[in-house]
Amino acid sequence: MAQHNVTAVTGFPMKKPRDGDENGATATAANGCGSISSVIPGWFSEISPMWPGEAHSLKVEKILFQGKSDYQDVMVFLSATYGKVLVLDGVIQLTERDECAYQEMITHLPLCSIPNPKKVLVIGGGDGGVLREVARHSSVEHIDICEIDKMVVDVSKEYFPDVSVGYEDPRVTLHVGDGVAFLKAAQEGSYDAVIVDSSDPIGPAQELFEKPFFESVAKALRPGGVMCTQAESIWLHMHIIEDIVANCRQIFKGSVNYAWTTVPTYPSGVIGFMLCSTEGPKVDFKNPINPIDGKENQNPSTVPLKFYNHEIHAAAFCLPSFAKKVIESKTEN
Amino acid sequence: MAQHNVTAVTGFPMKKPRDGDENGATATAANGCGSISSVIPGWFSEISPMWPGEAHSLKVEKILFQGKSDYQDVMVFLSATYGKVLVLDGVIQLTERDECAYQEMITHLPLCSIPNPKKVLVIGGGDGGVLREVARHSSVEHIDICEIDKMVVDVSKEYFPDVSVGYEDPRVTLHVGDGVAFLKAAQEGSYDAVIVDSSDPIGPAQELFEKPFFESVAKALRPGGVMCTQAESIWLHMHIIEDIVANCRQIFKGSVNYAWTTVPTYPSGVIGFMLCSTEGPKVDFKNPINPIDGKENQNPSTVPLKFYNHEIHAAAFCLPSFAKKVIESKTEN
Repeated sequence: MAQHNVTAVTGFPMKKPRDGDENGATATAANGCGSISSVIPGWFSEISPMWPGEAHSLKVEKILFQGKSDYQDVMVFLSATYGKVLVLDGVIQLTERDECAYQEMITHLPLCSIPNPKKVLVIGGGDGGVLREVARHSSVEHIDICEIDKMVVDVSKEYFPDVSVGYEDPRVTLHVGDGVAFLKAAQEGSYDAVIVDSSDPIGPAQELFEKPFFESVAKALRPGGVMCTQAESIWLHMHIIEDIVANCRQIFKGSVNYAWTTVPTYPSGVIGFMLCSTEGPKVDFKNPINPIDGKENQNPSTVPLKFYNHEIHAAAFCLPSFAKKVIESKTEN
Repeated sequence: MAQHNVTAVTGFPMKKPRDGDENGATATAANGCGSISSVIPGWFSEISPMWPGEAHSLKVEKILFQGKSDYQDVMVFLSATYGKVLVLDGVIQLTERDECAYQEMITHLPLCSIPNPKKVLVIGGGDGGVLREVARHSSVEHIDICEIDKMVVDVSKEYFPDVSVGYEDPRVTLHVGDGVAFLKAAQEGSYDAVIVDSSDPIGPAQELFEKPFFESVAKALRPGGVMCTQAESIWLHMHIIEDIVANCRQIFKGSVNYAWTTVPTYPSGVIGFMLCSTEGPKVDFKNPINPIDGKENQNPSTVPLKFYNHEIHAAAFCLPSFAKKVIESKTEN
């Protein structure tokens, strides 16, 4: 979740660690409106207008990095119980403890649904975790990644070696730049899969959830190619999801599906994905035809999958009734 | 999640609303050790040694009730975005916004897995939400509930009418008392299903996760009868789950399964369930044979299911690889 196209709207004023703090570190988050602020000494609290009235907090052992790129505030801290944590503009992007769920699902849900993916594009995902997962697929010959913020790449390489390891794969080409422009310039029908590892659609990444962007994605995909994009929480953002589904339904003439998974450090503890295919060979996302689990011993240097397996793949498309009602009414139109 | 057998170990010192607070309300949680404390003015923060290093906070609009029963501290507050919230000993038991997920899953996972359940026992669950769900099953003739803390029942009836509505069903008999003792005294083989809606296994409810209790449950069930018990989070409590699974495997000679679901206001955003059956007619929990969804129009006065459906039932048994590895190695022994 690291694609930002413009300077962040919601500021994130960082304080220096205060002398005398119990844990030697204090992180403070405040939303851009200035109407809410909170401090738990020694804790990082995630407060945002995207999830009003609630906040998740992690105890901070040590702040490891604080910087301001051209696009956003970047922070890395060591938490007491979730390992190292990457924060962009006050929002947790990944923790070492639970990043496996997001990275494995956003990657293998699309790639295990098509036979022999060869050329893959990642938009955002500067931390490298999605690359690490794409690289498990031996059929893949080329991986492009377009991340706008080089600081995210550098910070990940410095502090999250088990995530940024994805960059070490020789099939990877990094493009630092705007994902929207990159896609517009991409050769028509050239990718088997596009994975959009974006931040939230209110603010900088808004364009990545709108029709013109989806049109660019569809154009860059081969017939029967697939897109997977981060698509928010069914508990918090059904109105946004409803719009994304409706947009995708207009653009993608193959199949349009919503899947979801658990990520404890994301708001409400879940995150969703839009999975769409272009007109062409039919893609049945709910029944993966290109299994990745069980193949892991083929490459002894690869760390085994922690989260994804073919059962959890199929289960990810089963929705609670309240979400099913809204999403399926849109996908059936 | 409202069964407590002894006075809570972790105290929860409540402060009176402070004059001049922005929201007219302040809730403070502290763990029993006195080593951690946190205050966000106008917010309730849930801090516990059961999930060290993290806390979920809800913005408080108004504290509606604060009391101390013989067993625990009881609080009800109106939150900014999750409706009314029931808190016992500093731990969120339910919110109006997401209680559907827990109540529907803990009830229909067991009851939809057996044909024509007639006699059901609920241990804990004093709020009445599980009763509301059991009552959807027209085959059920009698529902016993044993809740130790009458204050939980009374508070639910006062502040959560959409949850405590379960008590209005004429098939329900409330027993205020100790669930462990109630089960020991229960007639052998008399229940089709026992649902254990308990709090966490460290402290008051510890007994409800141990072998002698499971033995009482198994004895009270008919052959091929089923138990469903709250069984913590795969993200936070794998060591506890491992023990529960091992205990159940020894006691329940039918099938032993672990399922899970999303509940945003529970720690890590998920909660699990142990689903076990006694020796007798085989129970295949993963393939429900007694559907409840789709039948709802039969009784127009019943509010439709919000969360449960037969797809989410089956999906609940699909585990991430890290959990599957531990749990299935135990269940296959």
